[in-house]
Amino acid sequence: MTNADWVYYRSAGFPAGGIVPKDKVVISPNDRGFLFADGVYEVMRSYAGRPFRPDEHMARLEHSLEAVRISLPDITMLKRIAGELLERNDLGLSDATVLVQITRGVCPRMVAVPPSRLVPTVYVETSRLEPRSNDMEVGVSVITVPDTRWSRCDIKAIGLLPNMLARLQATEAGVAEAVFVRDGVVTEGTHTNLFGVLSGTVVTHPAGNHILAGVTRAVVLELCRSLSLPVAEAGVREDRLLSFDELFISATTAEVTPIVSVNGQPVGNGRPGPVTRRLQAAFRDYVEKTLTVSGPE
Amino acid sequence: MTNADWVYYRSAGFPAGGIVPKDKVVISPNDRGFLFADGVYEVMRSYAGRPFRPDEHMARLEHSLEAVRISLPDITMLKRIAGELLERNDLGLSDATVLVQITRGVCPRMVAVPPSRLVPTVYVETSRLEPRSNDMEVGVSVITVPDTRWSRCDIKAIGLLPNMLARLQATEAGVAEAVFVRDGVVTEGTHTNLFGVLSGTVVTHPAGNHILAGVTRAVVLELCRSLSLPVAEAGVREDRLLSFDELFISATTAEVTPIVSVNGQPVGNGRPGPVTRRLQAAFRDYVEKTLTVSGPE
Repeated sequence: MTNADWVYYRSAGFPAGGIVPKDKVVISPNDRGFLFADGVYEVMRSYAGRPFRPDEHMARLEHSLEAVRISLPDITMLKRIAGELLERNDLGLSDATVLVQITRGVCPRMVAVPPSRLVPTVYVETSRLEPRSNDMEVGVSVITVPDTRWSRCDIKAIGLLPNMLARLQATEAGVAEAVFVRDGVVTEGTHTNLFGVLSGTVVTHPAGNHILAGVTRAVVLELCRSLSLPVAEAGVREDRLLSFDELFISATTAEVTPIVSVNGQPVGNGRPGPVTRRLQAAFRDYVEKTLTVSGPE
Repeated sequence: MTNADWVYYRSAGFPAGGIVPKDKVVISPNDRGFLFADGVYEVMRSYAGRPFRPDEHMARLEHSLEAVRISLPDITMLKRIAGELLERNDLGLSDATVLVQITRGVCPRMVAVPPSRLVPTVYVETSRLEPRSNDMEVGVSVITVPDTRWSRCDIKAIGLLPNMLARLQATEAGVAEAVFVRDGVVTEGTHTNLFGVLSGTVVTHPAGNHILAGVTRAVVLELCRSLSLPVAEAGVREDRLLSFDELFISATTAEVTPIVSVNGQPVGNGRPGPVTRRLQAAFRDYVEKTLTVSGPE
């Protein structure tokens, strides 16, 4: 958090809506986000002040909004707001994240109002990213936990309690991430997608309603193709995880991070593998190239 | 909502915590309830100003808090606060509901804080109940929908998006409630438990992690025993629903409400059945008796 912490906020019953200091934001106790987790979100990443793949994030936000049937006609303004906030919060040269959260609106709890009558609440904040941790270099450990989540994980909904509980388990186990297992099959992490490498083929869970197909996941799959690495989008059984040569996670902030142990057992030789390293390097190159090519907005 | 709309609110960073006018409440955009649906709730009912089965609601709240590992040492104050709010909001002689919502607390989104360091947010509001609708008399229609919810429905968590989407479908279908079906088996409604009557036996889904075992559900099961109605706690397959003689739902506000049609098909002869009527009468008697016996608090 910087001193000048500006956010975008607009909500029914908050007349001062627009770009405002974060400490002036008043979320109503009638906000359906607070009451029911009735909303969706996105977290975009910026490198040196420039949002990374904003169009993909906005497309996913549209998918989420449509799936939960919230209508936000002026969704295209969000990219501009993100850019403006990054600038005003002095993040124009830094790595940062942009959170966009949309709820169905404000309505007293016991009142049944047709959702179409509600005006969605829009909240956008930026956060400076901590300097890159050592995780990408040395790799992280993970545990597996039962996937208790609902069956529409393709919607980036704000109801993240199962993810929070799984992360709590990970923290207590002293590891970086928990990986969900549904019906014996590994789906994804609490805020990451999971990849394996087996005899040179990169394997990850197929898109569908049991995972959130990450923007970084899509970049990784593109990079695999450009590196001529064979890809298989297939579910991996939990009991086969340790037969993989390499494992890694992908995420907006974690980019490509090696997994070196699962439930205390080493992955491969317990060190980041060569395919993971190639993809990390390719990812960094790709980011550099994107920043150079896209130029100032 | 009455003019004097008092609520109880306390939260880290809200120094004026306590019983305050609702329009003075400021939910922080860093509240983990708003950001992650990281919290739980209860809705108690009061009859003529007196909370109904408050101890059962508080016991369930404790179960939910423990399951999501939020610690609220002074939980026993909530009953007193509920009583005080009912009085101050002029609901001492009315039927009303009391919402209690607890979130894990306030913490910036991108900061990893051990949850044990957070101070939970506590929010309590009361709402006057509308005069009893005709539904209990004439019965309601329902539709069935896939149960997309997570696998810990025994936790009364604030992440109610799947319930909201199911209710939206019900509203659009012109019916009162949607009933969830998981793996072919009917579990419960979006905010109600479901009961069937087959050859005199009252059947309802067993408690467990796929339903929220309602306080009203427990009262209905007690009443069945006192009326010598045989009870079977068993899952009912969706394709067997219409072979039941009677169906009804139970809930804090809906009490015992007959179901007269499912997906447009009549239940039994399409009118509330005799066992449902007996249970409705017994429920009303029970409420009357409770109010008389318990006396002023």
